Amino acid sequence: MSGFVKVVEVGPRDGLQNEPQALPVAARVELVEQLADTGLRHIEAGAFVSPRWVPQMADSGEVLRRLGRRPGVRFSALVPNQQGLEAALAAGCEEVAVFAAASEAFSQRNINCSIADSLRRFEPVLALARERGVRVRGYVSCVLDCPYGGPVAPQRAGEVAQRLYELGCYEISLGDTLGKGTPDATARLVEHCAERLPLAALAGHFHDTFGMAVANVHAALQAGVRTFDSSLAGLGGCPYSPGASGNVATEDVLHLLHGMGYATGVDLPAVARLGTAISQRLGRPNASRAGRALAAAGGERHP
Amino acid sequence: MSGFVKVVEVGPRDGLQNEPQALPVAARVELVEQLADTGLRHIEAGAFVSPRWVPQMADSGEVLRRLGRRPGVRFSALVPNQQGLEAALAAGCEEVAVFAAASEAFSQRNINCSIADSLRRFEPVLALARERGVRVRGYVSCVLDCPYGGPVAPQRAGEVAQRLYELGCYEISLGDTLGKGTPDATARLVEHCAERLPLAALAGHFHDTFGMAVANVHAALQAGVRTFDSSLAGLGGCPYSPGASGNVATEDVLHLLHGMGYATGVDLPAVARLGTAISQRLGRPNASRAGRALAAAGGERHP
Repeated sequence: MSGFVKVVEVGPRDGLQNEPQALPVAARVELVEQLADTGLRHIEAGAFVSPRWVPQMADSGEVLRRLGRRPGVRFSALVPNQQGLEAALAAGCEEVAVFAAASEAFSQRNINCSIADSLRRFEPVLALARERGVRVRGYVSCVLDCPYGGPVAPQRAGEVAQRLYELGCYEISLGDTLGKGTPDATARLVEHCAERLPLAALAGHFHDTFGMAVANVHAALQAGVRTFDSSLAGLGGCPYSPGASGNVATEDVLHLLHGMGYATGVDLPAVARLGTAISQRLGRPNASRAGRALAAAGGERHP
Repeated sequence: MSGFVKVVEVGPRDGLQNEPQALPVAARVELVEQLADTGLRHIEAGAFVSPRWVPQMADSGEVLRRLGRRPGVRFSALVPNQQGLEAALAAGCEEVAVFAAASEAFSQRNINCSIADSLRRFEPVLALARERGVRVRGYVSCVLDCPYGGPVAPQRAGEVAQRLYELGCYEISLGDTLGKGTPDATARLVEHCAERLPLAALAGHFHDTFGMAVANVHAALQAGVRTFDSSLAGLGGCPYSPGASGNVATEDVLHLLHGMGYATGVDLPAVARLGTAISQRLGRPNASRAGRALAAAGGERHP
């Protein structure tokens, strides 16, 4: 097995927005820059959402402005609507991400409208982004399970993924928001989605709430997915299971990929050092097992 | 996918022996009995090793004696030699486990003799066990990686597994002692071993040091293995990476298996409650992510 796998670092956004402690702009900028230094080529750096609801993402415009542009590296930000996109454009964002749920119950409770309505509302956002030459990534949440409706059929997730792709998203990230899904369900999901849109346009986004994330990454990899989202030190949490694990850890994903002979271009020991540092700064345990093992071994001995 | 998968609970032995704090006999007996109450049908309850080297396993004879016999449940103990077997027999053990390494360097450094010598020394142990009607399980350690010699060829692990099987072990547990191995290597290992001995005689024993354990369980499952060792709350540690993760957590393995439609006969929420309690008693974080998620959700809501 070999080839290249793209790792999208979402720690500074999906990770930090679910941590109880908010970091100031300077710390967020430094973290993103250090992550780019490890070889990561796509880093989600902020979210243009209301600071009343998500104080951890306040001043994302300032974060993106300070980051500026870096050849070969993409800094993206989440935008929930037209207003968010305009703020992202004003901050010079080259890429944004929009989102929809694969579960009707989740869509209603989380964003207060149907899946169809949420997709319709993104149409002008995608049109403006296209006009301004900004790439758009699409997230589909609850692709395997919904906290309100139980297991989600792969057809439902596939329909939403296809619609976001047709609307112009260049890549669709399939999110197991609850982190309950198992690798067989992941494989079925990917197979189903691959009938509707190109495999190369799919990304896997797994949360580790029930310890399935690395196995799900592997199952998606076996099914042909070559892009995965992850957070250094497994930053983040599951808002639907307080105290539970967050995103799959970048270090664990890199250990898996490198161990299987895939190239990522990312320096695992360097990410592990950043994971140790950010965990200390946030006063939380390092949720990456590879990160802890590397730290215990001195960080250098198990590349 | 469906069928039955056997989960061998090794927390009271492989887990506790790697925890800094030793538990008294009464607590160990209570833990094993509570584990049996959850539906687990094979529990490794002690080790007849020197209490100078492994104080956590002191008085294992007393633990086994107090446990006595329980219809349908097997309590086993590790024995390093003839003397250990005799102590196990005296305590009424119905099953013991012996061990060898797949790595020559590890065998030399860990038990101070070659693999061939270690297997030869177990011959009279297996002969006496057979004579006394005691079943013997065999562990092979370092099946994927060795802390001193790097990656281990599947042929080496397969040879040792086959030899233990020929010597009379009814089941061979393949141990990724270092927890560095990836699912592709696990699949290759199982395929290789299955050419030498029956698949039904193989068990998977994965440590979660680098976060690969659940993915490796899944890979072994895909390759046909139907028996897995695990520790409640992911008890244990990796003696070669201080501070790193221990055995794969029973709760996470059960979540994987049940989610994929396999039957185990084990009550996951009940194991999760024991995992929470033992973690508190030992003053350590609960290393099972499914266990933490279930505890956060109240323990009952996500069966």
